[in-house]
Amino acid sequence: MDRIRLIDVNEEILADNAGLADRLRDRLAQENVFLLNLMGSPGAGKTSLLLKTIEALNDRFNIAVIEADIDAMVDAETVAELNVPVVQLRTGGFCHVDANMTEKALESLDLEALDLVILENVGNLVCPAEFDTGAMKNAALLSVPEGDDKPLKYPLMFTVADALIFSKMDCIEMFDFDVTRATERARALNPDLQVFPLSSSTSQGLDSWLDWLTAFLSHDSTCE
Amino acid sequence: MDRIRLIDVNEEILADNAGLADRLRDRLAQENVFLLNLMGSPGAGKTSLLLKTIEALNDRFNIAVIEADIDAMVDAETVAELNVPVVQLRTGGFCHVDANMTEKALESLDLEALDLVILENVGNLVCPAEFDTGAMKNAALLSVPEGDDKPLKYPLMFTVADALIFSKMDCIEMFDFDVTRATERARALNPDLQVFPLSSSTSQGLDSWLDWLTAFLSHDSTCE
Repeated sequence: MDRIRLIDVNEEILADNAGLADRLRDRLAQENVFLLNLMGSPGAGKTSLLLKTIEALNDRFNIAVIEADIDAMVDAETVAELNVPVVQLRTGGFCHVDANMTEKALESLDLEALDLVILENVGNLVCPAEFDTGAMKNAALLSVPEGDDKPLKYPLMFTVADALIFSKMDCIEMFDFDVTRATERARALNPDLQVFPLSSSTSQGLDSWLDWLTAFLSHDSTCE
Repeated sequence: MDRIRLIDVNEEILADNAGLADRLRDRLAQENVFLLNLMGSPGAGKTSLLLKTIEALNDRFNIAVIEADIDAMVDAETVAELNVPVVQLRTGGFCHVDANMTEKALESLDLEALDLVILENVGNLVCPAEFDTGAMKNAALLSVPEGDDKPLKYPLMFTVADALIFSKMDCIEMFDFDVTRATERARALNPDLQVFPLSSSTSQGLDSWLDWLTAFLSHDSTCE
């Protein structure tokens, strides 16, 4: 528990969230820190992908994690096992993270020492999409068991995402999920969306995701 | 499309939602209509369970459905194939259904001719739990692929539910989901919770769920 900083949110939502998010993004860019916002339904596999991503990149980049949860700290404890700095943001009922919460969480981190901060948002396919967190890029997970109709039913998430990850691809034989159909439905909302079908269990498809992410990271710690 | 009534929500959330929900519940009880509120994450299998439930009970009870969605009408169209009255409640961004929305939806239905109305709430494990819809009972779905840690992370949903359905049980071999552990975690929040592990694909476990539900239905249309 000592490895995890805990922040309880009990603030009002700011009227100018978009303005604060822009200022936060500028400040992070100046510090050469890339902030990724990872979103998706409960159980979509956000934590599993986060762990795989850290394991793959931890020797090349300095990474920290912000874990947002309504309650509980189970994910933060799992992530802390990888010896990366973790901030637990307990939203106290809020179904999203906004820029004000992100800023509070970042205050606990030594930004100068970091290349990448991954924000694992609250598990929810609706509310997190409504709030700019200040992240440079948004990644949304849609797991195969959830079904390929979700872009039709939760359009905002697929509109605000820069990257769309189809997770649990190792289970595709068991479910009625068509990657082409899901991709078309999401790209109808957002033509520029980058799509990554992958499995955090088998690591299939993981390299493309890592290539996309690392292209945004300005320096490679081992090459300096 | 003619078979489905569409209601667009553009109301303020009422301050006295709890009071309105109580009055709605009283009115439904007087009309001998049982209202069930079905909640769960996107892709947890709410629509599949709804379809199976209607197929099993349609010859004994008069059933109608309220389909709540942020956008789209795909579920309503699927349900309407079963020739039951369907009201589509389009929440226009709202991540939940409240009693005011339920009341609006019920106005489109002939309550005198109904025994059971099933409200399929917005796919979300957070927000719908915060709003009393006026339903007599709340059922929450947790699908096996989502993982057995969800009661720890989204406690309110498991606290307000009367019935907890573990769905997609036919896939349990592929996922790290322990029914006993999930049940213990949920019952720690809510000792009276009724638990139903089932699969809408294979129909395993469906009878217990149907027995629980039909026990609340006051009359059996074929026996009158």
